[in-house]
Amino acid sequence: MTDMTSFGRSVLATQPFSKHMGTELVSFEPGRVVLALTTRPEFLQQHGFIHGGVLSYLIDNALTFAGGSVLGEKVVTVEYKVNYLRPARCERLTATAVVESFGKRLAVCRCEVVAMEAQKETPCAIGQGTIAVQG
Amino acid sequence: MTDMTSFGRSVLATQPFSKHMGTELVSFEPGRVVLALTTRPEFLQQHGFIHGGVLSYLIDNALTFAGGSVLGEKVVTVEYKVNYLRPARCERLTATAVVESFGKRLAVCRCEVVAMEAQKETPCAIGQGTIAVQG
Amino acid sequence: MTDMTSFGRSVLATQPFSKHMGTELVSFEPGRVVLALTTRPEFLQQHGFIHGGVLSYLIDNALTFAGGSVLGEKVVTVEYKVNYLRPARCERLTATAVVESFGKRLAVCRCEVVAMEAQKETPCAIGQGTIAVQG
Amino acid sequence: MTDMTSFGRSVLATQPFSKHMGTELVSFEPGRVVLALTTRPEFLQQHGFIHGGVLSYLIDNALTFAGGSVLGEKVVTVEYKVNYLRPARCERLTATAVVESFGKRLAVCRCEVVAMEAQKETPCAIGQGTIAVQG
Repeated sequence: MTDMTSFGRSVLATQPFSKHMGTELVSFEPGRVVLALTTRPEFLQQHGFIHGGVLSYLIDNALTFAGGSVLGEKVVTVEYKVNYLRPARCERLTATAVVESFGKRLAVCRCEVVAMEAQKETPCAIGQGTIAVQG
Repeated sequence: MTDMTSFGRSVLATQPFSKHMGTELVSFEPGRVVLALTTRPEFLQQHGFIHGGVLSYLIDNALTFAGGSVLGEKVVTVEYKVNYLRPARCERLTATAVVESFGKRLAVCRCEVVAMEAQKETPCAIGQGTIAVQG
Repeated sequence: MTDMTSFGRSVLATQPFSKHMGTELVSFEPGRVVLALTTRPEFLQQHGFIHGGVLSYLIDNALTFAGGSVLGEKVVTVEYKVNYLRPARCERLTATAVVESFGKRLAVCRCEVVAMEAQKETPCAIGQGTIAVQG
Repeated sequence: MTDMTSFGRSVLATQPFSKHMGTELVSFEPGRVVLALTTRPEFLQQHGFIHGGVLSYLIDNALTFAGGSVLGEKVVTVEYKVNYLRPARCERLTATAVVESFGKRLAVCRCEVVAMEAQKETPCAIGQGTIAVQG
């Protein structure tokens, strides 16, 4: 585990909502982060799929970490957009976010969420958003 | 309580994630829904504000109900976008979503999330998205 | 005509693309702008409706002016999203953009484009985006 | 030139606005399209960069062609989002759009616009959107 991954995990551990959801930081490097979430029955919607809000939360969080990896720790998510690709029914979700471009104050990031079930990986949502230095 | 509000509540009650979060359906009518969420310590991020993922979840869910109010029960959220307006630190959140336009298969909806604290209401996020009839 | 509208027009006049399109600034005040465009045959797509790119351009420009009305003249459009509501076949388009929220460096704005034909006004696209102070 | 590229060019040629802008279809295959635009002085904004509306138009059009490549000719752009990465000052723009996922009625596509100047390619905008079968 790199120092940066270790640092990312310490930041994630200070987010009560991420602890509540059980989010893990898999890897963290300049311009890229991978988060993962083991799914639970309470994450579902009425048709037995992962609730879109869970996927959105994961995208939001991954975009923020990606932006923070190049802009520094004090960042906020300004905005993002998500397209759901297909319903997710899985044991585990991973969200990989990358920085597409950044300046002194803003970073544009993209994210893909993949549903993992029995060794099979299925993309289920993609996002694109803006992260800014606070203040 | 109208029959439609009662029906909306019964649908919300079948979403494990919404039950887990404690989401309430305040009102439901053709083209408009109001959801509410009493905040809990586990909904926060590291700076003591409501985690963006909680606001996103609420927008996602409100957009879907708004779309469903005109398209019928079998709908999915195709996509949406959220802009965070300011950090939310509050007792309660309400999300009001309205239908801007709809056809046979698609509805375009908007949503505003308001943070409520000591009688003061502060808009904290706005969203815009597309809901589709399933299949 | 207010001084601000007059100033807005002078800014619009320095945009070669807006001159090329024939965009007019109808009104400009803190937090709100109205742009208009008289449609021409060359603005259409293959089915005889206004090309989505024309609507997008108008939204982009209106969002930027709205943001600039509260952030100052040196602004850039960071990002925006557009939902097309229905095909537009009309003599004239108006785009009304308003500021939803702003701070020192960023403004969140919304925009609605209305198709005007024979006194009838039909909303045809809505947008939401972020404007930032340059640099 | 493939039959599909030839077909794509014939469709593009029926769009008055694309003819007006001078848009070229470079290549067209299932799930991917490349459009190009030679820039002109009238495409600029007040600071000498390509107007965002020109980049948006190109993204909108590329997303639609990408979606149409898998859904068939009768498609409409439902919505899209664009993030501007940096100001574009260039001789030529190319927009490459790809399909991320599609079903019977909807396709989710992404697009990148690259500014080309003196052999140098600089990404200047990215987009993500939804294309639907008409009706």
